[in-house]
Amino acid sequence: MRVQGKDYRTVWLEGSTVKLIDQHRLPHAFAIVGCPTHRDTAEAIRTMLVRGAGAIGAAAGYAMAQAALEAPEAGFAASVDGAAKTIRSTRPTAHDLFYAVEHVLQAVQQAGSPAQARQAAVRMAGRLADENAQAGETIGRVGAALLREGMRIMTHCNAGWLAFVDWGSALAPVYHAHREGRAVFVYVKETRPRSQGAKLTAWELAQEGIDHTVIADTAAGSVFQQGHIDGVMVGADRIAANGDVVNKIGTYTIAVLAKHHGVPFYVAAPRSTFDLSIPEGSKIPIEERSPDEVAWVTGLTPQGRLERVRITPEGSTAKNPAFDLTPASFVTRFITEGGLLNPTAAAIRAFVTASPARPTVAGYSAS
Amino acid sequence: MRVQGKDYRTVWLEGSTVKLIDQHRLPHAFAIVGCPTHRDTAEAIRTMLVRGAGAIGAAAGYAMAQAALEAPEAGFAASVDGAAKTIRSTRPTAHDLFYAVEHVLQAVQQAGSPAQARQAAVRMAGRLADENAQAGETIGRVGAALLREGMRIMTHCNAGWLAFVDWGSALAPVYHAHREGRAVFVYVKETRPRSQGAKLTAWELAQEGIDHTVIADTAAGSVFQQGHIDGVMVGADRIAANGDVVNKIGTYTIAVLAKHHGVPFYVAAPRSTFDLSIPEGSKIPIEERSPDEVAWVTGLTPQGRLERVRITPEGSTAKNPAFDLTPASFVTRFITEGGLLNPTAAAIRAFVTASPARPTVAGYSAS
Repeated sequence: MRVQGKDYRTVWLEGSTVKLIDQHRLPHAFAIVGCPTHRDTAEAIRTMLVRGAGAIGAAAGYAMAQAALEAPEAGFAASVDGAAKTIRSTRPTAHDLFYAVEHVLQAVQQAGSPAQARQAAVRMAGRLADENAQAGETIGRVGAALLREGMRIMTHCNAGWLAFVDWGSALAPVYHAHREGRAVFVYVKETRPRSQGAKLTAWELAQEGIDHTVIADTAAGSVFQQGHIDGVMVGADRIAANGDVVNKIGTYTIAVLAKHHGVPFYVAAPRSTFDLSIPEGSKIPIEERSPDEVAWVTGLTPQGRLERVRITPEGSTAKNPAFDLTPASFVTRFITEGGLLNPTAAAIRAFVTASPARPTVAGYSAS
Repeated sequence: MRVQGKDYRTVWLEGSTVKLIDQHRLPHAFAIVGCPTHRDTAEAIRTMLVRGAGAIGAAAGYAMAQAALEAPEAGFAASVDGAAKTIRSTRPTAHDLFYAVEHVLQAVQQAGSPAQARQAAVRMAGRLADENAQAGETIGRVGAALLREGMRIMTHCNAGWLAFVDWGSALAPVYHAHREGRAVFVYVKETRPRSQGAKLTAWELAQEGIDHTVIADTAAGSVFQQGHIDGVMVGADRIAANGDVVNKIGTYTIAVLAKHHGVPFYVAAPRSTFDLSIPEGSKIPIEERSPDEVAWVTGLTPQGRLERVRITPEGSTAKNPAFDLTPASFVTRFITEGGLLNPTAAAIRAFVTASPARPTVAGYSAS
């Protein structure tokens, strides 16, 4: 990704400090935040200072590396285990988080000494981040083959490079097509309540020079009805073994609209988002977030000050599920670093188990 | 309606001043605004200080009465005609506006002198407002018969008493059922970009003591999927002769979700919303409003100050259609002051032409 002419990653480790692009202040300010300890990084995940499946995974891996660097010689293993518990408890839905924690934990457990374990943890966290960036690059190449000149794509939330270490999932094909010289137009759904579409995706696309327009979530049906959408590309927070997809709240509505209008619905995700231990989507825990996210909106005043304003009447309640479930039957194809996949248990299993030799992640539960 | 223990109408005439409940400042402040001239009232319609099909109609009727009161003896007819043009140009979609303008204009034209015309205009504007309130009351009674104890209803935008002179359309059945002692729970869709659900409907329901929760528009699919919705009740801005419905942007998406999940979809509207001169919905003009409505949100700061904040990146564009089209095939029944109607051209024609003897409104075009 390039921001103001400089190359960045969304999250990285500098010494023992995790550095992040501050996603609370975008698009109004671009700032890097440092998290000196694993607890700070965990808090950054919990408060969504860093968000998006792949970026959460990378941050969680680095937080585990911090935990290993911080753990005392005496009681080293218990200290790292405790940190893993803290990091796992930040957000329940995104599989990349658990995938990263387990991989770093296993690297630590296989090391001979605390010193070796620290080295192994830092190495594994870096490798996971690199693999995430690499997966996004490949997903972009694979998905770009679906994009012809002039196509109009709807996306939801933010599944671009801010949601990953680099490249992204759903937006990576758009970036690839653009670099290959094909113009693609993106309909950016605002994605209330946190407005990641209007805030993050619009900003990312502007940085990349991609034509787009923001629409309120309510306008989605109308643009489908008018034949303005040639395809949908969204990311995923967790995909069950049968192909059911859990992604940002609102994804299911788009899937129903796409099916009703005969428009292909693509879900782009790396291997780390697939969870073979979960047989079907209804078993994936859905995070319920604070009603305040619906009631309050943050933005920039005409005077250039970041301010929170309340929309709803005082005392009014709101329900705020952060994700919803799109059954596999709504998915046209998965776009992965292993190619395009049919939404079937067999295709998913073949892809996930063909992964680079790495211990499978199982035996934990997020619920 | 009762606000803070006092009975109000949404819009009324006091002398030659139109009084309105200020819908820009709700739910954070309850205030009455006076519009001394027809131009002020037209501006209040244009800026949505008053909004909602029935309330726009009543305000337009009163604005026409103001125009008659203001018109000089010399060139009286031309002056009133000019005012009608101004008032018609404020908003293109809601049929109630045109219905009211034409009715007052005809009353003026049938009068013998300017003095008689002024009297006739004031009388007709008052009669239209009374009929609107009465229609809401009857729609409430008719629709309440559909509501059993404990039912969970989804509504969109605001089609309660703030959108009419009194009672409302989609919410009137809920208010009636509540007064008849049956508890109904309402899922209030926020309704971006102007958030009339989160701001106005949540406030109205709280004033009436009706249990409800606000949800982001993105959460609609999820609550349908979980079986939490027993019925949808929405209003309409214009209904074509064949039963196609134009209503607030986002209505069509709910209709698709309701059909997909086998949930009944009711459209509540008085006679004045049906437009027999328009054969089908695609011929109804859809107002495109400023992208600023998507980019900027108004609310109350923690310090209690009304403030506007921008969500989107500077320079980002947005598309902002104010309404969408729901084909008649998605409508289970219309709830009208003439009873429940099937969504067929024959049923609609029978209902509309059975109206109290009044010249039909034809021969004008909003486009």
